[in-house]
Amino acid sequence: MILIDGKKIAAEIKLEIAEEVKQLLQNGGKQPHLVAILVGHDGGSETYVASKIKDCEEVGFKSSLFRYEDNVDEAILIEKVKELNNDPDVDGFIVQLPLPKHISEQKVIDTIDPRKDVDGFHPVNVGRMVLGMPSFISATPDGIVELLKRYKIETSGKNCVVIGRSNIVGRPMSILMSQKSINSTVTLAHSRTKDLKKVCADADILIAALGAPGFVTGDMVKEGAVVIDVGTTRVPSTETKSGYRLKGDVNFEEVDSKCSFITPVPGGVGLMTRISLLKNTLLAAKKTIYS
Amino acid sequence: MILIDGKKIAAEIKLEIAEEVKQLLQNGGKQPHLVAILVGHDGGSETYVASKIKDCEEVGFKSSLFRYEDNVDEAILIEKVKELNNDPDVDGFIVQLPLPKHISEQKVIDTIDPRKDVDGFHPVNVGRMVLGMPSFISATPDGIVELLKRYKIETSGKNCVVIGRSNIVGRPMSILMSQKSINSTVTLAHSRTKDLKKVCADADILIAALGAPGFVTGDMVKEGAVVIDVGTTRVPSTETKSGYRLKGDVNFEEVDSKCSFITPVPGGVGLMTRISLLKNTLLAAKKTIYS
Repeated sequence: MILIDGKKIAAEIKLEIAEEVKQLLQNGGKQPHLVAILVGHDGGSETYVASKIKDCEEVGFKSSLFRYEDNVDEAILIEKVKELNNDPDVDGFIVQLPLPKHISEQKVIDTIDPRKDVDGFHPVNVGRMVLGMPSFISATPDGIVELLKRYKIETSGKNCVVIGRSNIVGRPMSILMSQKSINSTVTLAHSRTKDLKKVCADADILIAALGAPGFVTGDMVKEGAVVIDVGTTRVPSTETKSGYRLKGDVNFEEVDSKCSFITPVPGGVGLMTRISLLKNTLLAAKKTIYS
Repeated sequence: MILIDGKKIAAEIKLEIAEEVKQLLQNGGKQPHLVAILVGHDGGSETYVASKIKDCEEVGFKSSLFRYEDNVDEAILIEKVKELNNDPDVDGFIVQLPLPKHISEQKVIDTIDPRKDVDGFHPVNVGRMVLGMPSFISATPDGIVELLKRYKIETSGKNCVVIGRSNIVGRPMSILMSQKSINSTVTLAHSRTKDLKKVCADADILIAALGAPGFVTGDMVKEGAVVIDVGTTRVPSTETKSGYRLKGDVNFEEVDSKCSFITPVPGGVGLMTRISLLKNTLLAAKKTIYS
């Protein structure tokens, strides 16, 4: 069994991006600039945004943060999005989700210029991804594809089962895995799937993205399978300072001995999602996707 | 075995649309208006466009046709698309594909206002479909969903296998079938799929959209399966005036006795695609998708 080391790969890619930024600046290019919009003071969102800004510093990007209180008007947020759309110094920006209930997340996302939508949430980027056109791909699916590539895991003709059909992970993951560049035969399983154990046990590559800690048990995994665990549920723990620890969708102890490759939680997919945001920002700065 | 009668269902829906148009006009509404752009004189394209215009007349839509020669400049076509985007009398329009090689189909499609993209080919409509938002859904997948609904075929929790991953049929079909409104467990099979016979033989609902006449044989179909045949390949025939006949992807004689439901070719899916264009045009006129 090979443990897929997301931390190591993430560190490698960060160095590659930093090197590319250095060369970009040496050639007289503009410093890539990522902007984050943060509404309210949700603990998770604060942590995520802080990490993203730290990542930017590490690779040599410029970063900016605009903060709004929980009670901000939707119109003010939309206005800010439009301003960032039109600001030539801003290459890409993200609006950290979730937003307060009185604000339509979809309306905010729809307002983002697809060329600066480095989260890859805008319908144009989703549609282009489906159609096999260049697009910003959302962070988690993109990070998983990167891990598979870096570990040279054969995907062509393999049976891939994705559990969970969320718009930001399972659904795009299932689409990407069956594109010609990856060529897996993909089954998208979900809450209504019958005989899920059997479906999963047929998978050469099993991607669990349903957010149910320990859901994938030993009997659901084929001998020699590749298992990718996207789950990061916070469960209470007396062993950590924070009072919780992250638990994946896979019952690691039952599954790991059967796998050819497996991602741990933490230290697997999670760190790669931050890398994908950096990759997309660099692509935006270089105008690679939309020329 | 129940033969799914696309001709009958198509006729029913046409009457329903005609009735709705009548009421729309009685309430002082505007007559729905579909515009088609046809480049060159390809026999197939001529036939398709003529049918679409005839359909419009039958349901009480206004229709217009703009024709260009094969050597038309891309810029002129793009200009026409922009003009139609801005014409308040035009509810929806289509550019009949394929276009001559010197014109970028994607560029033309990308220029269409998504609110008038009644073919559902624009990345925004594809992306919105994926995200479960209201969207114009492309004709063939939409027509198949309609057939399944009209025949009250149970889809929730069923294993659905789609063969073929084209951007206009297989891929969107696979996505639609796994949306919450349909809830099938979908496997998207394609040229790189291993053990395709076994994959297909597990399907409760088998949708063949690969364009290979007679590809699906009896051993690939489970007893009691629903089989949807999207293939419409022209094969030479001495028995028809035209010199050809349409052949589906399914070996009908081998398969039909095993099925609970099956679509014939012709008379199955094909006629429904024309209906979907009418449905989308009506939705565009009523501004149901983009309000």
